[in-house]
Amino acid sequence: MTIVYAAMICGVIAVLYGIITSRQILAASAGNEKMQDIAAAIAEGAKAYLGRQYRTIAIVGVVVAILVGYFLGILSAAAFAVGAILSGVTGFIGMNVSVKANVRTAEAARTSLQGGLTMAFRSGAVTGMLVAGLGLLAITLLFWYMIAIRHLDLAVHADRRVIVDSLVALAFGASLISIFARLGGGIFTKAADVGADLVGKVEAGIPEDDPRNPATIADNVGDNVGDCAGMAADLFETYVVTIGVTMASIALLLPNADHLFQLMTLPLLVGGVCVITSIIGTYMVRLGGSGSIMGALYKGFWTTVILSIPAIYFATQYVLGDMHAAIGGSSALGDVAGSLTPEAVAGAGAVTFTGMKLFICMMIGLALTGALVWITEYYTGTNFRPVRSIAKASETGHGTNVIQGLAVSLESPALPTLVISIAVIGCFQLAGIIGIAFGATAMLALAGMVVALDAYGPVTDNAGGIAEMAGLPDDVRHRTDALDAVGNTTKAVTKGYAIGSAALAALVLFGAYTTDLGIYFPDLHVDFTLSNPYVIVGLLLGALLPFSFGAFGMTAVGRAAGSVVEDVRAQFRDNPGIMEGTVRPNYARTVDLVTKAAIKEMIIPSLLPVLAPIVVYFVITAVADQASGFAALGALLLGVIVSGLFVAISMTSGGGAWDNAKKYIEDGHHGGKGSEAHKAAVTGDTVGDPYKDTAGPAVNPMIKITNIVALLLLAALAAHAGVVG
Amino acid sequence: MTIVYAAMICGVIAVLYGIITSRQILAASAGNEKMQDIAAAIAEGAKAYLGRQYRTIAIVGVVVAILVGYFLGILSAAAFAVGAILSGVTGFIGMNVSVKANVRTAEAARTSLQGGLTMAFRSGAVTGMLVAGLGLLAITLLFWYMIAIRHLDLAVHADRRVIVDSLVALAFGASLISIFARLGGGIFTKAADVGADLVGKVEAGIPEDDPRNPATIADNVGDNVGDCAGMAADLFETYVVTIGVTMASIALLLPNADHLFQLMTLPLLVGGVCVITSIIGTYMVRLGGSGSIMGALYKGFWTTVILSIPAIYFATQYVLGDMHAAIGGSSALGDVAGSLTPEAVAGAGAVTFTGMKLFICMMIGLALTGALVWITEYYTGTNFRPVRSIAKASETGHGTNVIQGLAVSLESPALPTLVISIAVIGCFQLAGIIGIAFGATAMLALAGMVVALDAYGPVTDNAGGIAEMAGLPDDVRHRTDALDAVGNTTKAVTKGYAIGSAALAALVLFGAYTTDLGIYFPDLHVDFTLSNPYVIVGLLLGALLPFSFGAFGMTAVGRAAGSVVEDVRAQFRDNPGIMEGTVRPNYARTVDLVTKAAIKEMIIPSLLPVLAPIVVYFVITAVADQASGFAALGALLLGVIVSGLFVAISMTSGGGAWDNAKKYIEDGHHGGKGSEAHKAAVTGDTVGDPYKDTAGPAVNPMIKITNIVALLLLAALAAHAGVVG
Repeated sequence: MTIVYAAMICGVIAVLYGIITSRQILAASAGNEKMQDIAAAIAEGAKAYLGRQYRTIAIVGVVVAILVGYFLGILSAAAFAVGAILSGVTGFIGMNVSVKANVRTAEAARTSLQGGLTMAFRSGAVTGMLVAGLGLLAITLLFWYMIAIRHLDLAVHADRRVIVDSLVALAFGASLISIFARLGGGIFTKAADVGADLVGKVEAGIPEDDPRNPATIADNVGDNVGDCAGMAADLFETYVVTIGVTMASIALLLPNADHLFQLMTLPLLVGGVCVITSIIGTYMVRLGGSGSIMGALYKGFWTTVILSIPAIYFATQYVLGDMHAAIGGSSALGDVAGSLTPEAVAGAGAVTFTGMKLFICMMIGLALTGALVWITEYYTGTNFRPVRSIAKASETGHGTNVIQGLAVSLESPALPTLVISIAVIGCFQLAGIIGIAFGATAMLALAGMVVALDAYGPVTDNAGGIAEMAGLPDDVRHRTDALDAVGNTTKAVTKGYAIGSAALAALVLFGAYTTDLGIYFPDLHVDFTLSNPYVIVGLLLGALLPFSFGAFGMTAVGRAAGSVVEDVRAQFRDNPGIMEGTVRPNYARTVDLVTKAAIKEMIIPSLLPVLAPIVVYFVITAVADQASGFAALGALLLGVIVSGLFVAISMTSGGGAWDNAKKYIEDGHHGGKGSEAHKAAVTGDTVGDPYKDTAGPAVNPMIKITNIVALLLLAALAAHAGVVG
Repeated sequence: MTIVYAAMICGVIAVLYGIITSRQILAASAGNEKMQDIAAAIAEGAKAYLGRQYRTIAIVGVVVAILVGYFLGILSAAAFAVGAILSGVTGFIGMNVSVKANVRTAEAARTSLQGGLTMAFRSGAVTGMLVAGLGLLAITLLFWYMIAIRHLDLAVHADRRVIVDSLVALAFGASLISIFARLGGGIFTKAADVGADLVGKVEAGIPEDDPRNPATIADNVGDNVGDCAGMAADLFETYVVTIGVTMASIALLLPNADHLFQLMTLPLLVGGVCVITSIIGTYMVRLGGSGSIMGALYKGFWTTVILSIPAIYFATQYVLGDMHAAIGGSSALGDVAGSLTPEAVAGAGAVTFTGMKLFICMMIGLALTGALVWITEYYTGTNFRPVRSIAKASETGHGTNVIQGLAVSLESPALPTLVISIAVIGCFQLAGIIGIAFGATAMLALAGMVVALDAYGPVTDNAGGIAEMAGLPDDVRHRTDALDAVGNTTKAVTKGYAIGSAALAALVLFGAYTTDLGIYFPDLHVDFTLSNPYVIVGLLLGALLPFSFGAFGMTAVGRAAGSVVEDVRAQFRDNPGIMEGTVRPNYARTVDLVTKAAIKEMIIPSLLPVLAPIVVYFVITAVADQASGFAALGALLLGVIVSGLFVAISMTSGGGAWDNAKKYIEDGHHGGKGSEAHKAAVTGDTVGDPYKDTAGPAVNPMIKITNIVALLLLAALAAHAGVVG
């Protein structure tokens, strides 16, 4: 139990870090009155949106909680509620810090680049540590409650079942909220951004963030509710699902292992020690002699990675004792799913591994994180071929800009797929599915640091907006723009990281699904071979989901942006004083309009991954039989990850590349600002916006939710059939 | 043997139809001297390109033929050569007819819309009937040669092997050529089109097909070498692969069936009778009272479909005799692949079916064709929501046009996936993998008619260009434009049809792969279950191929179009007389430039699907073992179809929708020609060009080639290991 307490303390430290750092941020100067006015308007809009969003989600959440309680018991319902509420809390606090830090970053950037960087990054670090800390506390406390208070015994089959179900329910709560938050926030931010750009920059010919643009506050609100709150909820989900499902898989796959309790607590301690290394890393973010902002952020990131290596090693050694003693072997691992008869489950997968092998798997996870960061920077950074090729293609017009952007977008998943494949094979060869799970756990253990890098972006974006609207000197805006350009890359990095870890986590979830199937329905022969046509149909339907989901996201942004354009046009028309700068536009009206649109548009696509597994299972079972239904459902889970990986990476990398190609041109290349190439690049950026900030990132929670719903469906069907798992 | 002769006669009839109709076309007036000059320049450029393209492909072809001969024997090498040569011949003749018909269509359109329609459609029908006729003759003659001349006996295992290998080699020849032709032609046509538009319409402000634009002949050449020759080679490949692999699968899966010979000849006779129904259909293409061009084409299409129902029924009854007698049962069907031990192969899949069930499977194939045609028209026709939503979004600029286009593109695979899934399940429940094969066969039996609808498009496009360049009266151009707009939809229809049939054919190919694996390596336990990580990695890598391939295609077009822009700018600069209309531009120089660029750019992406299966097999075998290598390779085959289906449909439907959204605006909506919305729509059209005519359609042969290479690799490995299959 010491391990659990140690992990809990690490979680508390993360939260304390968040509180202390927040106070430091609040203590800084919030600038002059005009700046504070603007920041207040942004904060008000963001709070109003999040409040309305969470009230809407709460309705869905309560309905689902009741269903979970009915089918899986009160403990699972409670775990679901905890996951859901904490996911919301993470987003809410992140947004709150962000709307305080934006104006203070603008103020700090009046003095120096370092000042702005520190303020913005500190704010990101608060969000990052809360994501990791609250995620860790949620799982740790739930596990502690079940073991220490409810006295559930891991050696008892029924008790183990309750523990697994609760962990999955916790993950479900986090996922369900995060898909709404990611999508709703993503629609809000991009509808406002695209709408403001179209009607401001393109039609009215006024610069970005000009206070005469009625949509400008909505645009800045969007950064906070989408790129900050939505992202935080998403990464909280990723954290909880990955670590929770790693623990659940250990319980499912190694029920008879001697070290079961230790093995299950190892992910918690790994998460705990990496919170500490992440906090240390945040203090290393300093501009060096070169003045490179990306270099400063990398110093923090690599410090965390390097410190995490010995930290994970010692955590593993502490938990498992002998690093070379064999673990596992007594149960099913690896190819359990082939033939799910009880004999097969008993006979198959005599995979054994050692603590050392698990450690190497976790090192593979860290290496994968590093590789994904590097690849994402290559595809979205202004120093490399992809972004420059888009910038070059802008010279010949809008069409060639978009063609080259799509080419980069289609190209970008190749290297991530190769490194993910290598990592999957490496981890599997070392320790089977459990190895993959630990690889994913190590990736997510760095979440605090990675989220910090990401959440810093919207703060600088907002700071630039405030500087513009408050009429601060040009050099302030230059500093915030420099910070913001790097933010485009770090935002893409987080998404690549989240989706890469999702690929690993989804494989673990699929392993849990097949294992559960064997436990719940031992007499059912489910044929998961690729030549089963129900498997093929399941793969096709699963692969379809990210495409349809992406279509919804893109359409929603297009439609909502259209209504922003109409609202702004109406404001300009009804009140000519706005363009003259004598009358303040009605910012709140536009915020309200985008709020309503985003909430309306987020519902149906968010329900798609929840309902699809259920519909596919019941339809296939009806036209064929239950075994075919389960086969199709399992294949759907893999189909969604296979195509989701490509859709998400191509959208997030492509969108980031488009954005930075515009910035590269604005830096004076290919004719610079105002040139024809720049106009073409603005089009590319507009196209990339919903790609990278709405449709693409929401694929990550979508993949997980599909998998978790399938697991819960299995449990519910078993309960319905009177099977005690 | 009567059946084989009957099929042969049908093939000969198709070729005769082609010859007679060609003569009718040639007999028509080719217009005035100016028109003939222009047409001659187009014809010259097209022949020069195709000549150079086929010389390049021939080098690859000879190398591969030698490899096939070395590993699989001289008969297979000869079959490969026949497939390759006929694929080339089909493209060449199609192009030749097309470059004669274009000017005659322009001339005929001077008199009436009906005249232009008839001329263009007749020309398309020649290509269509040659695709089906030559495809049918190739397979029929090969089969006849093996049975009647070489006296191979289907009851003898070794002989059956030779027959299967030869059929696969024939398919390989057709596929290999067609991927080069599709991609090379696709790059040519879109590089010239995009380049001509960018520098002509956008920069110089001259209309499309203006004779002052040096790239205008290249643009018209592109229609012939890409949309006509490339498409014909592609559909020839689809035809040969589908029917050839259906026959091979029957031989592999039902080696002991009583009716083996009859079953294998049934696809030939079905192909034969549908050639006749297609020819009848071509005579039904007439404008009705409403003057609807799409309606006229549909009359032909639906006549063919409806006549094919009884034709297929009587063909089946004639071949199999009793429609209700049980067939099969003695061998492995369906889930052969699960466990590939000889006992399993012998014991598994006691699927039996009847002639009636096969007939229903073929009806499902026809219904699927109809459904895909309807869905494609919905997504690309100007009367429906998707195209109109893009047109509407153009009002707010380039960015929203592209966003909405991408949304439509992402949405478009949903319905096709659903109907394909239903068809797969339906056919499989009736007659296992063989049922799916017959469903695909029935789809392809309509190829003559479908290709006719498609090949008519580039002829009308060219006719419009000639009318413009020759300065014919405006109403001629209006008539050819009306014909061309429908051509956009019919072109998209063929692509949806080809990729839909590819999904079915690829499943049959996968079935052949797993069956062959069991035959060649009976002692190897290959685990194809989804929980095998090598399967997952194979799926990921397979799914990656269409994305990378698409990236190559888009980049190639962007790059080649860029060099067209530079060439044209240079011509305008060096010779101001061109813009004044006093000096004829150097058309040939631009054609030559695009020719070289297209051929250079087509090589690497075309080799990707050939080499990927080989590399994946050897790498995975090296890091794990042979069984894992085969598992990853098998999964790669499914991965490529799963993602290829989505990539191809989204690109071809999205591109068609963009193109027609532009046409819809040009028809006077949202401000009409020259409005801001129109400019945005031109951008969307430019983006859609390489989507729908380069990257998207080339995915179809790419899927097949990956699968066929895997089959050949298996056979080569077996030969190497001394295994007699």
